[in-house]
Amino acid sequence: MAQASALLRSRVRRPSYLSKVATAEDLIPLFPHNAYVGPKDIPYPGDSGSLQEKARRTLSEYTLTIPSSPQQVGWSGFTGVGYPKKIPTALADYVEANNLQGKQKYNLFVGASSGAETENRWAKLDMIERRSPHQVGKEIARGINEGRINFFDKHLSMFPVDLMYGYYTKHKENNKLDVAIVEATAITEDGGIIPGASVGASPEIIQMADKIIIEVNTATPSFEGLHDITMTDLPPRRKPYLIMAPEDRIGTPHIPVDPEKVVAIVESDYPDQTQPNAPEDESSRAIAGHLIEFLKHEVTQGRLPPNLLPIQSGIGNIANAVIGGLSGGHANFKNLKVWTEVLQDAFIDLLDSGNLDFATATSIRFSPDGFHRFYDRWDQYTPKLLLRSQQVSNNPEIIRRLGVIGMNTPVEVDIYAHANSTCVFGSRMLNGLGGSADFLRSSKYSIMHTPSTRPSKTDPTGVSCIVPMCTHVDQTEHDLDVIVTEQGLADVRGMSPKERAREIIKQCAHPDYKPILQDYFDTAEQVCLKKGWGHEPHLLWNAFDMHKNLNDHGTMKLDKWS
Amino acid sequence: MAQASALLRSRVRRPSYLSKVATAEDLIPLFPHNAYVGPKDIPYPGDSGSLQEKARRTLSEYTLTIPSSPQQVGWSGFTGVGYPKKIPTALADYVEANNLQGKQKYNLFVGASSGAETENRWAKLDMIERRSPHQVGKEIARGINEGRINFFDKHLSMFPVDLMYGYYTKHKENNKLDVAIVEATAITEDGGIIPGASVGASPEIIQMADKIIIEVNTATPSFEGLHDITMTDLPPRRKPYLIMAPEDRIGTPHIPVDPEKVVAIVESDYPDQTQPNAPEDESSRAIAGHLIEFLKHEVTQGRLPPNLLPIQSGIGNIANAVIGGLSGGHANFKNLKVWTEVLQDAFIDLLDSGNLDFATATSIRFSPDGFHRFYDRWDQYTPKLLLRSQQVSNNPEIIRRLGVIGMNTPVEVDIYAHANSTCVFGSRMLNGLGGSADFLRSSKYSIMHTPSTRPSKTDPTGVSCIVPMCTHVDQTEHDLDVIVTEQGLADVRGMSPKERAREIIKQCAHPDYKPILQDYFDTAEQVCLKKGWGHEPHLLWNAFDMHKNLNDHGTMKLDKWS
Repeated sequence: MAQASALLRSRVRRPSYLSKVATAEDLIPLFPHNAYVGPKDIPYPGDSGSLQEKARRTLSEYTLTIPSSPQQVGWSGFTGVGYPKKIPTALADYVEANNLQGKQKYNLFVGASSGAETENRWAKLDMIERRSPHQVGKEIARGINEGRINFFDKHLSMFPVDLMYGYYTKHKENNKLDVAIVEATAITEDGGIIPGASVGASPEIIQMADKIIIEVNTATPSFEGLHDITMTDLPPRRKPYLIMAPEDRIGTPHIPVDPEKVVAIVESDYPDQTQPNAPEDESSRAIAGHLIEFLKHEVTQGRLPPNLLPIQSGIGNIANAVIGGLSGGHANFKNLKVWTEVLQDAFIDLLDSGNLDFATATSIRFSPDGFHRFYDRWDQYTPKLLLRSQQVSNNPEIIRRLGVIGMNTPVEVDIYAHANSTCVFGSRMLNGLGGSADFLRSSKYSIMHTPSTRPSKTDPTGVSCIVPMCTHVDQTEHDLDVIVTEQGLADVRGMSPKERAREIIKQCAHPDYKPILQDYFDTAEQVCLKKGWGHEPHLLWNAFDMHKNLNDHGTMKLDKWS
Repeated sequence: MAQASALLRSRVRRPSYLSKVATAEDLIPLFPHNAYVGPKDIPYPGDSGSLQEKARRTLSEYTLTIPSSPQQVGWSGFTGVGYPKKIPTALADYVEANNLQGKQKYNLFVGASSGAETENRWAKLDMIERRSPHQVGKEIARGINEGRINFFDKHLSMFPVDLMYGYYTKHKENNKLDVAIVEATAITEDGGIIPGASVGASPEIIQMADKIIIEVNTATPSFEGLHDITMTDLPPRRKPYLIMAPEDRIGTPHIPVDPEKVVAIVESDYPDQTQPNAPEDESSRAIAGHLIEFLKHEVTQGRLPPNLLPIQSGIGNIANAVIGGLSGGHANFKNLKVWTEVLQDAFIDLLDSGNLDFATATSIRFSPDGFHRFYDRWDQYTPKLLLRSQQVSNNPEIIRRLGVIGMNTPVEVDIYAHANSTCVFGSRMLNGLGGSADFLRSSKYSIMHTPSTRPSKTDPTGVSCIVPMCTHVDQTEHDLDVIVTEQGLADVRGMSPKERAREIIKQCAHPDYKPILQDYFDTAEQVCLKKGWGHEPHLLWNAFDMHKNLNDHGTMKLDKWS
């Protein structure tokens, strides 16, 4: 057993936990992988005993069961903050040192993405057998698209519920996760966890875990008071979420934990490794401009109150520009509230402007600079902020009730207002669905913003983000209200598919692609009306010709629809 | 003003309404259509005055405004029950008698489908300019697919909310519907409406209407006591639906109405024109068999309680067989509850079996025989039944909370578990999305059941319902848990796309199509993994070759993937 530092003691108010302090290296035997390597074959650092013996010795209260398939491991973390750092790193070091790449693998469940130095490294070392529901990182994307990682993306609000239903642990007798590793910034008297900058799926991962390891991060401040935690009941005992406004609290300030399940406490000594945000550019400012005009129009028409309704906004330069534009210039909306999945740096500026009354999310994903600003004015910002579980932040129940203004960026949108949020060419996974459909399916305003084109390798406007038919559909035509590009905004509410197509091509398509898309639509309309199929006209055998042209010739600029 | 019959007086407990009794023919001037025909040009039956004069005379309290675009008309009704009968018929007679086909058109909003003799006849007479969110009938489908009707389908839970937001009346200054025609089976003392066999979108249509006409149906019994009505508030004042079980009541037994908006009362004298149900067949019984085995397995594994969770089931022979199978034979589930959109005859049998404790829906759509059985044992059935608005019956908030078992039939499902619920060949509209995505997106168990094949004109198994890629996506891979055909059941929970494809082809595809689909998947996997696109492998340029073969050669039995 390791010694608890004074700093660690100052964060852990549950005395019994201090007898469970361990180093990350002590805990490696808790993560065997029998399906690939027998326990006697794995050398343990600095020890000649078998894994099982080692496990019994260091953690005598727990009898190790070697699993017959990859262990089910849950981590805390969301959008690269609040993830465990020490144990994943120690396990990666161990695999690397012992050349166990591809032999020691895990089924890894994290609310959304974790830190690059942990899960991306695991992917590089081929330590991930299965992963859900969302990921970020070159190595993990490569593992998925080269077929080594069984990844499935899932609505971020639904993932923790399906986990609780036992859907991801069906093959296990007790339907549980083997181990959860959860980062805390403090521990309460009754053993509860105070998370850091994210809550994510930690409540459900903790509820579903046989064994819990807590990494107490002493390198960041304690986030105590910033969370509102609800646990997930199963039907028929599930209750309404009695939230009527972003600031409503319905839970506890900590995640309740069964102390007997806590097998170890590890001190973690470095902060979340976040990246700077993408800067605004001309295109994202133009998109923001159209959107703000639209919101002002809706206020004028009486469909929105003057302070709007709670705003959801993602990560990225368009989101940055939109959030920046809300308080600046001629927009100048006052008393705004935010109900979103993740808060990025732009929200600090919005708080500073005095126009943001309250913001709630499941994750604060600031840049390193953003975190500095946040910690420096902690007392001013935190009364206006609240973190919840992703089951709550992304819950359709609450999003619909509050009438959220939901905004998201897709891979591509088609002329009938379906959107692809995940798979390039219908096949190559980027990061996963995330909360896009949680919000766009239930928001009052479901808005997709995208540049009208992206560059290909050989053509600066070689990829049109407006296409005849999406190669993968994550958001359906039944879900989207508004499509906006730097070219303009298409308000497709109440429109039939053919009306939508004309409007989206007219308002949103890049001039280079307008004639190509219009030609597709006109021809499809003519052909399909003649056949009596004309509700949503398509040239089905040619619907992906623009994509084929991109694949074959490096640009979507098709000469003709063959 | 018309005379109120004794029967009508027995149903209308609000005295002031009796002074508003009119015949359907009296009310025709309330439905002008200026965009197509000026008021002076339309001959009025038995009257030489203009429409406006006539309107002022018969309904002096109301100053008629001639709209500059098609009138926005809302009807009660859902799945062909509870729809207005007299006025739509009188208007159709009028258009027919005066050769106004294509000249007198309306934007028609009904919760779901209406009766064939009303909306289908309107379609045949080219009286519908725009229609949402769902329809049933050959003539209306023809009008949509031949481009005469601007139809858009929408989640049935979302449609009334978007209506309330003013999204469908954007072009009007007051954001209101012009006229609502709502069927009642009785009127309360304070002027409230007791609906009949459906609630649908009537609460929101009434809230949004400038003028309300009530058709009091004296040919069916009063359904008083069978409804639980909630009206829709707008954010930020919307509240939780405090429903924790199908039997919970949270509203009033009637739809509250502003009596000053009621411009006329018309007596309606014939019942809902429903059709007999499709009978079970060998295929639907096989599907039901697989499903019931699956549910029993889930009970054994502890993922479902012995009385299951609330069941949602649609209309059709598969639904019939499933509901029939729940109480019969070796299944014998007890104390079942139902949370669904529409109740069909099979539920009467389930009530008779004694195994159904409670059922709630937005519509009771029995066959004529079914209604006879229902009325004969009214006192035994009605304590176990409750009708709600479609905003509540289909609400994701409640469906998710209750952990509903959602079951639906698609046009086609693809190997990665996307489903097409609406558009044949991606273009030809059938009936619309309905509540399929309301339920499948939020249910605990999201189940698609379909025969593995359907006949084409020349091949009894010419159409495979399992395809490489859906030609239209209404349910995404992120939503479906289980696919079942008469061949078998694929439980795809927790599976990556490639695992899903193998399982769906193995368990669900028809033997004639198994090698064709397996060949597609194997080739796509090989090609895409090589490119580093292998998350969800597709041969994008050939993904619809089976559909093309059907179009060109009358069968999906493709010789080879070119």
